[in-house]
Amino acid sequence: MALTGRVRRELGWGDCDPAGIIYYPTYYRWMDAASWSLLAQGGWPATRIRAEHVSMPLVNATCDFLSSPTFGDTCEVRSHVSRWGRASFTVTHEVVLLPDGRVLARGSESRVWCRYENGPGTQLRSEPVPADLRAALGGPPA
Amino acid sequence: MALTGRVRRELGWGDCDPAGIIYYPTYYRWMDAASWSLLAQGGWPATRIRAEHVSMPLVNATCDFLSSPTFGDTCEVRSHVSRWGRASFTVTHEVVLLPDGRVLARGSESRVWCRYENGPGTQLRSEPVPADLRAALGGPPA
Amino acid sequence: MALTGRVRRELGWGDCDPAGIIYYPTYYRWMDAASWSLLAQGGWPATRIRAEHVSMPLVNATCDFLSSPTFGDTCEVRSHVSRWGRASFTVTHEVVLLPDGRVLARGSESRVWCRYENGPGTQLRSEPVPADLRAALGGPPA
Amino acid sequence: MALTGRVRRELGWGDCDPAGIIYYPTYYRWMDAASWSLLAQGGWPATRIRAEHVSMPLVNATCDFLSSPTFGDTCEVRSHVSRWGRASFTVTHEVVLLPDGRVLARGSESRVWCRYENGPGTQLRSEPVPADLRAALGGPPA
Repeated sequence: MALTGRVRRELGWGDCDPAGIIYYPTYYRWMDAASWSLLAQGGWPATRIRAEHVSMPLVNATCDFLSSPTFGDTCEVRSHVSRWGRASFTVTHEVVLLPDGRVLARGSESRVWCRYENGPGTQLRSEPVPADLRAALGGPPA
Repeated sequence: MALTGRVRRELGWGDCDPAGIIYYPTYYRWMDAASWSLLAQGGWPATRIRAEHVSMPLVNATCDFLSSPTFGDTCEVRSHVSRWGRASFTVTHEVVLLPDGRVLARGSESRVWCRYENGPGTQLRSEPVPADLRAALGGPPA
Repeated sequence: MALTGRVRRELGWGDCDPAGIIYYPTYYRWMDAASWSLLAQGGWPATRIRAEHVSMPLVNATCDFLSSPTFGDTCEVRSHVSRWGRASFTVTHEVVLLPDGRVLARGSESRVWCRYENGPGTQLRSEPVPADLRAALGGPPA
Repeated sequence: MALTGRVRRELGWGDCDPAGIIYYPTYYRWMDAASWSLLAQGGWPATRIRAEHVSMPLVNATCDFLSSPTFGDTCEVRSHVSRWGRASFTVTHEVVLLPDGRVLARGSESRVWCRYENGPGTQLRSEPVPADLRAALGGPPA
Protein backbone atom coordinates (compact mmCIF):
# COMPACT_ATOMS: atom_id res chain seq x y z
CA MET A 1 0.00 0.00 0.00
CA ALA A 2 1.27 3.46 -0.83
CA LEU A 3 2.95 5.31 2.00
CA THR A 4 1.44 8.76 2.60
CA GLY A 5 3.75 11.66 3.40
CA ARG A 6 2.49 14.61 5.40
CA VAL A 7 3.97 18.08 5.31
CA ARG A 8 2.52 20.94 7.31
CA ARG A 9 2.57 24.57 6.25
CA GLU A 10 1.21 27.71 7.86
CA LEU A 11 0.10 30.07 5.12
CA GLY A 12 2.47 33.02 5.45
CA TRP A 13 1.91 36.70 4.75
CA GLY A 14 4.16 36.49 1.70
CA ASP A 15 2.40 33.36 0.41
CA CYS A 16 -0.78 35.38 -0.07
CA ASP A 17 -1.76 37.84 -2.76
CA PRO A 18 -3.59 41.15 -2.53
CA ALA A 19 -6.87 39.21 -2.48
CA GLY A 20 -5.73 37.98 0.93
CA ILE A 21 -5.78 34.33 -0.14
CA ILE A 22 -3.05 31.93 -1.20
CA TYR A 23 -1.07 33.10 -4.27
CA TYR A 24 -1.62 29.99 -6.35
CA PRO A 25 2.03 29.19 -7.29
CA THR A 26 2.49 28.66 -3.54
CA TYR A 27 0.64 25.34 -3.92
CA TYR A 28 3.33 24.17 -6.33
CA ARG A 29 6.08 25.24 -3.91
CA TRP A 30 4.35 23.14 -1.28
CA MET A 31 3.86 20.16 -3.59
CA ASP A 32 7.53 20.29 -4.56
CA ALA A 33 8.56 20.34 -0.90
CA ALA A 34 6.13 17.50 -0.17
CA SER A 35 7.69 15.37 -2.91
CA TRP A 36 11.20 15.91 -1.54
CA SER A 37 9.90 15.04 1.90
CA LEU A 38 8.26 11.85 0.62
CA LEU A 39 11.54 10.83 -0.98
CA ALA A 40 13.34 11.38 2.30
CA GLN A 41 10.80 9.07 3.96
CA GLY A 42 11.62 6.55 1.25
CA GLY A 43 15.29 6.56 2.15
CA TRP A 44 16.40 9.31 -0.22
CA PRO A 45 16.98 12.47 1.85
CA ALA A 46 18.59 15.58 0.33
CA THR A 47 22.06 14.45 1.34
CA ARG A 48 21.76 11.14 -0.53
CA ILE A 49 20.13 12.79 -3.56
CA ARG A 50 23.08 15.19 -3.72
CA ALA A 51 25.73 12.56 -3.05
CA GLU A 52 24.39 10.28 -5.77
CA HIS A 53 23.96 13.14 -8.29
CA VAL A 54 20.27 12.51 -8.72
CA SER A 55 17.72 15.00 -10.00
CA MET A 56 13.98 14.64 -10.61
CA PRO A 57 12.85 17.02 -13.35
CA LEU A 58 9.12 17.31 -13.94
CA VAL A 59 7.29 16.65 -17.18
CA ASN A 60 3.93 17.88 -15.89
CA ALA A 61 2.33 19.47 -12.85
CA THR A 62 -1.35 20.14 -12.45
CA CYS A 63 -3.63 21.29 -9.67
CA ASP A 64 -7.35 21.77 -9.08
CA PHE A 65 -8.16 24.56 -6.66
CA LEU A 66 -11.28 23.95 -4.60
CA SER A 67 -11.09 26.46 -1.77
CA SER A 68 -8.57 29.08 -0.72
CA PRO A 69 -6.76 29.33 2.60
CA THR A 70 -6.09 32.79 4.00
CA PHE A 71 -3.18 34.25 5.96
CA GLY A 72 -2.42 32.28 9.10
CA ASP A 73 -4.28 29.09 8.14
CA THR A 74 -2.57 25.79 8.86
CA CYS A 75 -2.55 23.38 5.94
CA GLU A 76 -1.30 19.85 5.39
CA VAL A 77 -0.08 18.37 2.13
CA ARG A 78 -0.78 14.63 1.97
CA SER A 79 1.22 12.92 -0.75
CA HIS A 80 1.73 9.48 -2.20
CA VAL A 81 3.11 7.99 -5.39
CA SER A 82 0.10 7.19 -7.54
CA ARG A 83 1.95 5.85 -10.57
CA TRP A 84 5.25 4.05 -10.94
CA GLY A 85 6.90 3.89 -14.36
CA ARG A 86 10.28 2.40 -15.11
CA ALA A 87 12.14 5.71 -14.89
CA SER A 88 9.29 7.97 -13.89
CA PHE A 89 6.62 8.34 -11.25
CA THR A 90 3.67 10.53 -10.38
CA VAL A 91 3.13 12.03 -6.96
CA THR A 92 -0.45 12.91 -6.09
CA HIS A 93 -1.02 15.59 -3.48
CA GLU A 94 -4.03 16.62 -1.49
CA VAL A 95 -3.86 19.89 0.42
CA VAL A 96 -6.24 20.08 3.35
CA LEU A 97 -7.06 22.74 5.89
CA LEU A 98 -6.39 21.88 9.51
CA PRO A 99 -7.92 21.06 11.86
CA ASP A 100 -11.13 20.31 9.96
CA GLY A 101 -9.56 18.50 6.98
CA ARG A 102 -11.49 20.37 4.29
CA VAL A 103 -9.81 19.76 0.92
CA LEU A 104 -8.31 22.94 -0.55
CA ALA A 105 -6.53 21.57 -3.61
CA ARG A 106 -5.72 18.34 -5.40
CA GLY A 107 -2.68 18.14 -7.63
CA SER A 108 -0.03 15.92 -9.08
CA GLU A 109 3.53 16.04 -10.34
CA SER A 110 4.99 13.68 -12.94
CA ARG A 111 8.73 13.35 -12.52
CA VAL A 112 11.60 11.51 -14.15
CA TRP A 113 14.36 9.86 -12.15
CA CYS A 114 17.65 11.17 -13.56
CA ARG A 115 21.34 11.18 -12.81
CA TYR A 116 23.95 13.75 -13.80
CA GLU A 117 26.35 11.94 -16.12
CA ASN A 118 29.43 13.83 -14.94
CA GLY A 119 28.55 15.46 -11.66
CA PRO A 120 26.16 18.28 -10.69
CA GLY A 121 25.11 20.55 -13.55
CA THR A 122 26.16 18.19 -16.35
CA GLN A 123 23.86 16.33 -18.75
CA LEU A 124 20.96 14.44 -17.13
CA ARG A 125 20.19 10.85 -18.11
CA SER A 126 17.04 9.00 -17.00
CA GLU A 127 17.47 5.83 -14.95
CA PRO A 128 15.21 3.19 -13.45
CA VAL A 129 13.66 4.34 -10.20
CA PRO A 130 15.70 2.63 -7.44
CA ALA A 131 14.14 -0.56 -6.12
CA ASP A 132 14.66 0.49 -2.49
CA LEU A 133 12.68 3.68 -3.07
CA ARG A 134 9.81 1.84 -4.78
CA ALA A 135 9.66 -0.68 -1.97
CA ALA A 136 9.86 1.92 0.79
CA LEU A 137 7.01 3.98 -0.67
CA GLY A 138 4.78 0.94 -1.23
CA GLY A 139 5.25 0.60 -4.97
CA PRO A 140 5.12 -2.72 -6.87
CA PRO A 141 8.38 -4.39 -7.93
CA ALA A 142 9.69 -2.98 -11.23
CA MET B 1 -9.18 35.78 -33.79
CA ALA B 2 -7.67 35.50 -30.37
CA LEU B 3 -5.28 38.29 -29.39
CA THR B 4 -1.88 36.98 -28.24
CA GLY B 5 -0.16 38.64 -25.31
CA ARG B 6 3.60 38.54 -24.95
CA VAL B 7 5.49 38.91 -21.71
CA ARG B 8 9.27 38.68 -21.55
CA ARG B 9 11.23 37.33 -18.59
CA GLU B 10 14.93 36.86 -18.03
CA LEU B 11 15.43 33.80 -15.86
CA GLY B 12 16.88 35.19 -12.65
CA TRP B 13 19.31 33.64 -10.18
CA GLY B 14 16.52 33.28 -7.65
CA ASP B 15 14.16 31.70 -10.18
CA CYS B 16 16.50 28.73 -10.49
CA ASP B 17 17.04 25.77 -8.21
CA PRO B 18 20.23 23.98 -7.16
CA ALA B 19 20.08 22.02 -10.42
CA GLY B 20 20.80 25.36 -12.12
CA ILE B 21 17.55 25.28 -14.10
CA ILE B 22 14.20 26.95 -13.62
CA TYR B 23 12.50 26.12 -10.32
CA TYR B 24 9.23 24.89 -11.79
CA PRO B 25 6.76 27.03 -9.75
CA THR B 26 8.42 29.97 -11.51
CA TYR B 27 6.48 28.98 -14.64
CA TYR B 28 3.24 29.54 -12.76
CA ARG B 29 4.44 32.92 -11.51
CA TRP B 30 5.10 33.83 -15.13
CA MET B 31 1.77 32.49 -16.39
CA ASP B 32 -0.04 34.44 -13.69
CA ALA B 33 1.78 37.64 -14.70
CA ALA B 34 1.04 36.90 -18.36
CA SER B 35 -2.68 36.58 -17.65
CA TRP B 36 -2.76 39.91 -15.83
CA SER B 37 -0.88 41.46 -18.74
CA LEU B 38 -3.33 39.99 -21.25
CA LEU B 39 -6.21 41.47 -19.28
CA ALA B 40 -4.53 44.85 -19.33
CA GLN B 41 -4.29 44.56 -23.11
CA GLY B 42 -8.00 43.80 -23.12
CA GLY B 43 -8.82 47.04 -21.35
CA TRP B 44 -8.64 45.73 -17.77
CA PRO B 45 -5.37 46.97 -16.24
CA ALA B 46 -4.61 46.54 -12.53
CA THR B 47 -6.09 49.93 -11.69
CA ARG B 48 -9.47 49.05 -13.23
CA ILE B 49 -9.47 45.55 -11.73
CA ARG B 50 -8.93 47.12 -8.33
CA ALA B 51 -11.39 49.96 -8.82
CA GLU B 52 -14.14 47.58 -9.91
CA HIS B 53 -13.41 45.08 -7.10
CA VAL B 54 -12.78 42.25 -9.52
CA SER B 55 -10.79 39.09 -8.77
CA MET B 56 -10.05 36.07 -10.96
CA PRO B 57 -9.53 32.98 -8.79
CA LEU B 58 -8.32 29.84 -10.52
CA VAL B 59 -10.02 26.49 -10.60
CA ASN B 60 -7.14 24.71 -12.33
CA ALA B 61 -3.63 25.31 -13.58
CA THR B 62 -1.55 22.80 -15.48
CA CYS B 63 1.74 22.82 -17.30
CA ASP B 64 3.82 20.45 -19.44
CA PHE B 65 7.55 20.97 -19.13
CA LEU B 66 9.48 20.22 -22.31
CA SER B 67 12.87 21.80 -21.81
CA SER B 68 14.46 23.84 -19.02
CA PRO B 69 15.94 27.32 -19.27
CA THR B 70 19.01 28.11 -17.20
CA PHE B 71 20.14 31.25 -15.37
CA GLY B 72 20.29 34.26 -17.67
CA ASP B 73 18.12 32.87 -20.46
CA THR B 74 15.54 35.18 -21.99
CA CYS B 75 12.07 33.67 -22.29
CA GLU B 76 8.75 34.85 -23.66
CA VAL B 77 5.32 33.82 -22.48
CA ARG B 78 2.77 33.88 -25.32
CA SER B 79 -0.79 33.81 -24.07
CA HIS B 80 -4.30 33.82 -25.40
CA VAL B 81 -7.76 32.96 -24.16
CA SER B 82 -8.50 29.49 -25.51
CA ARG B 83 -11.94 29.03 -23.95
CA TRP B 84 -14.66 31.49 -23.04
CA GLY B 85 -17.40 30.42 -20.65
CA ARG B 86 -20.14 32.62 -19.31
CA ALA B 87 -18.32 33.51 -16.09
CA SER B 88 -15.06 31.71 -16.71
CA PHE B 89 -12.26 31.49 -19.23
CA THR B 90 -9.09 29.55 -19.89
CA VAL B 91 -5.79 31.19 -20.74
CA THR B 92 -3.33 29.02 -22.66
CA HIS B 93 0.35 29.88 -22.36
CA GLU B 94 3.37 28.86 -24.35
CA VAL B 95 6.79 29.67 -22.91
CA VAL B 96 9.54 29.89 -25.51
CA LEU B 97 13.25 30.51 -25.35
CA LEU B 98 14.52 33.60 -27.19
CA PRO B 99 15.87 34.21 -29.68
CA ASP B 100 15.37 30.75 -31.22
CA GLY B 101 11.76 30.21 -30.17
CA ARG B 102 12.22 26.68 -28.83
CA VAL B 103 9.17 25.75 -26.74
CA LEU B 104 10.04 25.26 -23.07
CA ALA B 105 6.60 24.75 -21.56
CA ARG B 106 2.91 24.71 -22.43
CA GLY B 107 0.35 25.44 -19.78
CA SER B 108 -3.10 26.78 -19.05
CA GLU B 109 -5.04 28.47 -16.30
CA SER B 110 -8.82 28.21 -15.84
CA ARG B 111 -10.17 31.23 -14.05
CA VAL B 112 -13.51 32.54 -12.87
CA TRP B 113 -14.54 36.17 -13.21
CA CYS B 114 -15.62 37.36 -9.78
CA ARG B 115 -16.52 40.51 -7.92
CA TYR B 116 -16.22 41.26 -4.22
CA GLU B 117 -19.76 41.76 -2.96
CA ASN B 118 -18.84 44.41 -0.41
CA GLY B 119 -15.41 45.69 -1.31
CA PRO B 120 -11.93 44.10 -1.27
CA GLY B 121 -11.61 41.06 0.92
CA THR B 122 -15.33 40.33 1.21
CA GLN B 123 -17.24 37.41 -0.31
CA LEU B 124 -16.59 36.76 -4.03
CA ARG B 125 -19.46 36.18 -6.44
CA SER B 126 -18.99 35.00 -10.04
CA GLU B 127 -20.21 37.28 -12.84
CA PRO B 128 -20.41 37.13 -16.62
CA VAL B 129 -17.10 37.99 -18.23
CA PRO B 130 -17.44 41.62 -19.40
CA ALA B 131 -18.39 41.96 -23.08
CA ASP B 132 -15.69 44.59 -23.69
CA LEU B 133 -13.00 42.18 -22.45
CA ARG B 134 -14.28 39.31 -24.61
CA ALA B 135 -14.39 41.54 -27.66
CA ALA B 136 -10.95 43.07 -27.04
CA LEU B 137 -9.31 39.66 -26.69
CA GLY B 138 -10.97 38.24 -29.76
CA GLY B 139 -13.63 36.13 -28.03
CA PRO B 140 -17.07 35.37 -29.47
CA PRO B 141 -20.08 37.31 -28.18
CA ALA B 142 -21.51 35.78 -25.00
CA MET C 1 12.76 40.16 29.80
CA ALA C 2 12.12 39.88 26.12
CA LEU C 3 10.19 36.82 25.01
CA THR C 4 12.00 34.84 22.30
CA GLY C 5 9.99 33.37 19.44
CA ARG C 6 11.22 30.32 17.60
CA VAL C 7 10.24 29.37 14.09
CA ARG C 8 11.66 26.31 12.36
CA ARG C 9 12.28 26.02 8.63
CA GLU C 10 13.71 23.24 6.52
CA LEU C 11 15.61 24.80 3.62
CA GLY C 12 13.62 23.76 0.56
CA TRP C 13 14.78 23.03 -2.97
CA GLY C 14 13.11 26.22 -4.18
CA ASP C 15 14.66 28.31 -1.39
CA CYS C 16 18.11 27.63 -2.83
CA ASP C 17 19.89 29.12 -5.80
CA PRO C 18 22.07 27.49 -8.46
CA ALA C 19 25.01 27.70 -6.04
CA GLY C 20 23.09 25.12 -3.98
CA ILE C 21 22.85 27.40 -0.95
CA ILE C 22 20.08 29.59 0.41
CA TYR C 23 18.88 32.27 -2.03
CA TYR C 24 19.39 35.22 0.27
CA PRO C 25 15.93 36.86 0.02
CA THR C 26 14.70 33.63 1.65
CA TYR C 27 16.14 34.92 4.94
CA TYR C 28 13.81 37.92 4.74
CA ARG C 29 10.83 35.65 4.02
CA TRP C 30 11.75 33.73 7.17
CA MET C 31 12.27 36.86 9.26
CA ASP C 32 8.90 38.20 8.14
CA ALA C 33 7.22 34.92 9.09
CA ALA C 34 9.07 34.94 12.41
CA SER C 35 7.79 38.43 13.21
CA TRP C 36 4.20 37.42 12.50
CA SER C 37 4.70 34.36 14.68
CA LEU C 38 6.13 36.47 17.51
CA LEU C 39 3.10 38.74 17.32
CA ALA C 40 0.81 35.74 17.55
CA GLN C 41 2.68 34.69 20.70
CA GLY C 42 2.05 38.20 22.01
CA GLY C 43 -1.69 37.84 21.60
CA TRP C 44 -1.97 39.21 18.07
CA PRO C 45 -2.51 36.26 15.70
CA ALA C 46 -3.39 36.78 12.03
CA THR C 47 -7.12 36.69 12.77
CA ARG C 48 -6.91 39.56 15.27
CA ILE C 49 -4.53 41.57 13.06
CA ARG C 50 -7.05 41.26 10.24
CA ALA C 51 -10.11 41.90 12.39
CA GLU C 52 -8.60 45.07 13.86
CA HIS C 53 -7.36 46.33 10.47
CA VAL C 54 -3.75 46.46 11.60
CA SER C 55 -0.71 46.43 9.35
CA MET C 56 2.99 46.64 10.19
CA PRO C 57 4.92 48.18 7.29
CA LEU C 58 8.70 48.16 7.53
CA VAL C 59 10.99 51.14 7.43
CA ASN C 60 14.19 49.08 7.34
CA ALA C 61 15.38 45.50 7.15
CA THR C 62 18.99 44.40 7.35
CA CYS C 63 20.83 41.13 7.62
CA ASP C 64 24.42 39.92 8.06
CA PHE C 65 25.13 36.60 6.41
CA LEU C 66 27.70 34.49 8.24
CA SER C 67 27.32 31.01 6.82
CA SER C 68 25.00 29.44 4.24
CA PRO C 69 22.67 26.50 4.76
CA THR C 70 22.21 24.07 1.89
CA PHE C 71 19.20 22.12 0.64
CA GLY C 72 17.62 20.00 3.36
CA ASP C 73 19.18 21.79 6.33
CA THR C 74 16.96 22.51 9.30
CA CYS C 75 17.17 26.07 10.58
CA GLU C 76 15.59 27.98 13.43
CA VAL C 77 14.81 31.68 13.52
CA ARG C 78 15.04 33.08 17.05
CA SER C 79 13.37 36.46 17.38
CA HIS C 80 12.70 39.08 19.99
CA VAL C 81 11.76 42.74 20.08
CA SER C 82 15.00 44.62 20.68
CA ARG C 83 13.58 48.15 20.58
CA TRP C 84 10.19 49.55 21.52
CA GLY C 85 9.19 52.98 20.23
CA ARG C 86 5.87 54.64 20.73
CA ALA C 87 4.43 53.51 17.40
CA SER C 88 7.33 51.42 16.16
CA PHE C 89 9.47 48.49 17.19
CA THR C 90 12.47 46.54 15.99
CA VAL C 91 12.55 42.76 15.82
CA THR C 92 16.00 41.19 15.96
CA HIS C 93 16.41 37.74 14.43
CA GLU C 94 19.11 35.13 14.69
CA VAL C 95 19.01 32.24 12.25
CA VAL C 96 20.81 29.14 13.48
CA LEU C 97 21.49 25.74 12.00
CA LEU C 98 20.05 22.77 13.87
CA PRO C 99 21.00 20.70 15.68
CA ASP C 100 24.38 22.32 16.35
CA GLY C 101 23.17 25.91 16.76
CA ARG C 102 25.79 27.49 14.49
CA VAL C 103 24.69 31.06 13.64
CA LEU C 104 23.92 31.49 9.94
CA ALA C 105 22.58 35.02 9.89
CA ARG C 106 21.70 37.94 12.14
CA GLY C 107 19.13 40.47 11.02
CA SER C 108 16.53 42.95 12.12
CA GLU C 109 13.32 44.53 10.93
CA SER C 110 12.06 47.97 11.99
CA ARG C 111 8.31 48.18 11.73
CA VAL C 112 5.58 50.72 12.37
CA TRP C 113 2.30 49.81 14.03
CA CYS C 114 -0.48 51.07 11.75
CA ARG C 115 -4.21 50.86 11.29
CA TYR C 116 -6.23 51.21 8.09
CA GLU C 117 -8.34 54.31 8.54
CA ASN C 118 -11.31 52.97 6.61
CA GLY C 119 -10.89 49.24 6.33
CA PRO C 120 -8.36 47.03 4.50
CA GLY C 121 -6.52 48.72 1.68
CA THR C 122 -7.31 52.28 2.74
CA GLN C 123 -4.86 54.87 4.10
CA LEU C 124 -2.59 53.67 6.93
CA ARG C 125 -2.12 55.73 10.07
CA SER C 126 0.49 54.95 12.74
CA GLU C 127 -0.73 54.22 16.25
CA PRO C 128 0.85 53.48 19.62
CA VAL C 129 1.90 49.86 19.92
CA PRO C 130 -0.83 48.16 22.02
CA ALA C 131 0.05 47.87 25.71
CA ASP C 132 -1.01 44.20 25.83
CA LEU C 133 1.45 43.35 23.05
CA ARG C 134 4.33 45.21 24.72
CA ALA C 135 3.63 43.48 28.01
CA ALA C 136 3.26 40.01 26.47
CA LEU C 137 6.55 40.29 24.63
CA GLY C 138 8.43 41.59 27.64
CA GLY C 139 8.63 45.25 26.65
CA PRO C 140 8.70 48.15 29.12
CA PRO C 141 5.49 50.15 29.72
CA ALA C 142 5.03 52.89 27.09
CA MET D 1 32.62 57.63 -12.66
CA ALA D 2 30.47 54.73 -11.55
CA LEU D 3 28.33 53.17 -14.26
CA THR D 4 24.64 53.01 -13.31
CA GLY D 5 22.65 49.93 -14.23
CA ARG D 6 18.90 50.13 -14.71
CA VAL D 7 16.50 47.24 -14.36
CA ARG D 8 12.77 47.65 -14.80
CA ARG D 9 10.12 45.65 -12.95
CA GLU D 10 6.34 45.77 -13.02
CA LEU D 11 5.07 44.91 -9.56
CA GLY D 12 3.23 41.63 -10.07
CA TRP D 13 0.22 40.22 -8.28
CA GLY D 14 2.41 37.63 -6.58
CA ASP D 15 4.97 40.23 -5.52
CA CYS D 16 2.36 41.87 -3.30
CA ASP D 17 1.03 40.89 0.09
CA PRO D 18 -2.51 40.96 1.49
CA ALA D 19 -2.01 44.66 2.28
CA GLY D 20 -1.95 45.13 -1.51
CA ILE D 21 1.57 46.57 -1.48
CA ILE D 22 4.96 45.10 -2.26
CA TYR D 23 5.89 42.11 -0.08
CA TYR D 24 9.18 43.47 1.19
CA PRO D 25 11.50 40.52 0.34
CA THR D 26 10.58 41.33 -3.28
CA TYR D 27 12.91 44.33 -3.04
CA TYR D 28 15.80 41.97 -2.32
CA ARG D 29 14.85 39.77 -5.27
CA TRP D 30 14.99 42.89 -7.42
CA MET D 31 18.28 44.09 -5.96
CA ASP D 32 19.82 40.67 -6.56
CA ALA D 33 18.65 40.70 -10.18
CA ALA D 34 19.94 44.27 -10.56
CA SER D 35 23.39 43.23 -9.32
CA TRP D 36 23.57 40.36 -11.81
CA SER D 37 22.47 42.76 -14.54
CA LEU D 38 25.14 45.29 -13.55
CA LEU D 39 27.77 42.57 -13.73
CA ALA D 40 26.59 41.63 -17.20
CA GLN D 41 27.03 45.26 -18.20
CA GLY D 42 30.54 45.06 -16.80
CA GLY D 43 31.41 42.17 -19.08
CA TRP D 44 30.42 39.33 -16.73
CA PRO D 45 27.10 37.91 -18.00
CA ALA D 46 25.62 34.71 -16.51
CA THR D 47 27.37 32.54 -19.10
CA ARG D 48 30.81 33.84 -18.16
CA ILE D 49 30.09 33.70 -14.42
CA ARG D 50 29.14 30.05 -14.85
CA ALA D 51 31.99 29.19 -17.19
CA GLU D 52 34.57 30.68 -14.83
CA HIS D 53 33.01 29.06 -11.73
CA VAL D 54 32.47 32.38 -10.03
CA SER D 55 29.98 33.06 -7.22
CA MET D 56 29.27 36.25 -5.28
CA PRO D 57 27.96 35.41 -1.81
CA LEU D 58 26.68 38.27 0.30
CA VAL D 59 27.92 39.32 3.70
CA ASN D 60 25.20 41.93 4.24
CA ALA D 61 22.09 43.32 2.63
CA THR D 62 20.09 46.24 3.94
CA CYS D 63 17.23 48.35 2.71
CA ASP D 64 15.29 51.44 3.82
CA PHE D 65 11.68 51.46 2.74
CA LEU D 66 10.29 54.92 2.01
CA SER D 67 7.10 54.32 0.09
CA SER D 68 5.31 51.23 -1.19
CA PRO D 69 4.37 50.44 -4.76
CA THR D 70 1.09 48.63 -5.39
CA PHE D 71 0.06 45.98 -7.91
CA GLY D 72 0.73 47.06 -11.49
CA ASP D 73 3.19 49.86 -10.69
CA THR D 74 6.29 50.12 -12.86
CA CYS D 75 9.51 50.47 -10.91
CA GLU D 76 13.15 50.91 -11.84
CA VAL D 77 16.15 49.72 -9.85
CA ARG D 78 19.16 52.00 -10.37
CA SER D 79 22.38 50.41 -9.23
CA HIS D 80 26.05 51.19 -9.02
CA VAL D 81 29.09 49.89 -7.17
CA SER D 82 29.59 52.28 -4.25
CA ARG D 83 32.60 50.54 -2.67
CA TRP D 84 35.41 48.47 -4.13
CA GLY D 85 37.48 46.27 -1.85
CA ARG D 86 40.20 43.91 -2.92
CA ALA D 87 37.95 40.85 -3.03
CA SER D 88 34.64 42.49 -2.19
CA PHE D 89 32.36 45.26 -3.36
CA THR D 90 29.13 46.97 -2.36
CA VAL D 91 26.29 47.60 -4.77
CA THR D 92 23.98 50.46 -3.85
CA HIS D 93 20.45 50.36 -5.24
CA GLU D 94 17.74 52.96 -5.51
CA VAL D 95 14.25 51.78 -6.42
CA VAL D 96 12.11 54.47 -7.99
CA LEU D 97 8.53 54.58 -9.21
CA LEU D 98 8.04 55.35 -12.88
CA PRO D 99 7.27 57.64 -14.54
CA ASP D 100 7.58 60.21 -11.75
CA GLY D 101 10.84 58.95 -10.22
CA ARG D 102 9.67 59.02 -6.62
CA VAL D 103 12.14 57.01 -4.49
CA LEU D 104 10.54 53.90 -3.00
CA ALA D 105 13.55 52.24 -1.39
CA ARG D 106 17.29 52.58 -0.95
CA GLY D 107 19.39 49.53 -0.28
CA SER D 108 22.77 47.94 -0.63
CA GLU D 109 24.39 44.55 -0.93
CA SER D 110 27.95 43.73 0.16
CA ARG D 111 29.32 40.82 -1.80
CA VAL D 112 32.53 38.81 -2.00
CA TRP D 113 34.07 37.74 -5.28
CA CYS D 114 34.65 33.99 -5.04
CA ARG D 115 35.61 31.04 -7.19
CA TYR D 116 34.71 27.37 -6.71
CA GLU D 117 37.99 25.59 -6.11
CA ASN D 118 36.98 22.41 -7.90
CA GLY D 119 33.97 23.25 -10.03
CA PRO D 120 30.37 24.21 -9.19
CA GLY D 121 29.25 23.31 -5.70
CA THR D 122 32.73 22.80 -4.26
CA GLN D 123 34.48 24.99 -1.68
CA LEU D 124 34.45 28.75 -2.41
CA ARG D 125 37.62 30.83 -2.14
CA SER D 126 37.67 34.63 -2.33
CA GLU D 127 39.68 36.26 -5.10
CA PRO D 128 40.56 39.79 -6.18
CA VAL D 129 37.73 41.40 -8.12
CA PRO D 130 38.76 41.17 -11.80
CA ALA D 131 40.41 44.32 -13.15
CA ASP D 132 38.24 44.31 -16.28
CA LEU D 133 35.08 44.36 -14.16
CA ARG D 134 36.34 47.21 -11.97
CA ALA D 135 37.30 49.24 -15.01
CA ALA D 136 34.05 48.58 -16.86
CA LEU D 137 31.92 49.66 -13.90
CA GLY D 138 33.96 52.79 -13.28
CA GLY D 139 35.92 51.61 -10.26
CA PRO D 140 39.45 52.77 -9.38
CA PRO D 141 42.40 50.49 -10.18
CA ALA D 142 42.99 47.89 -7.45
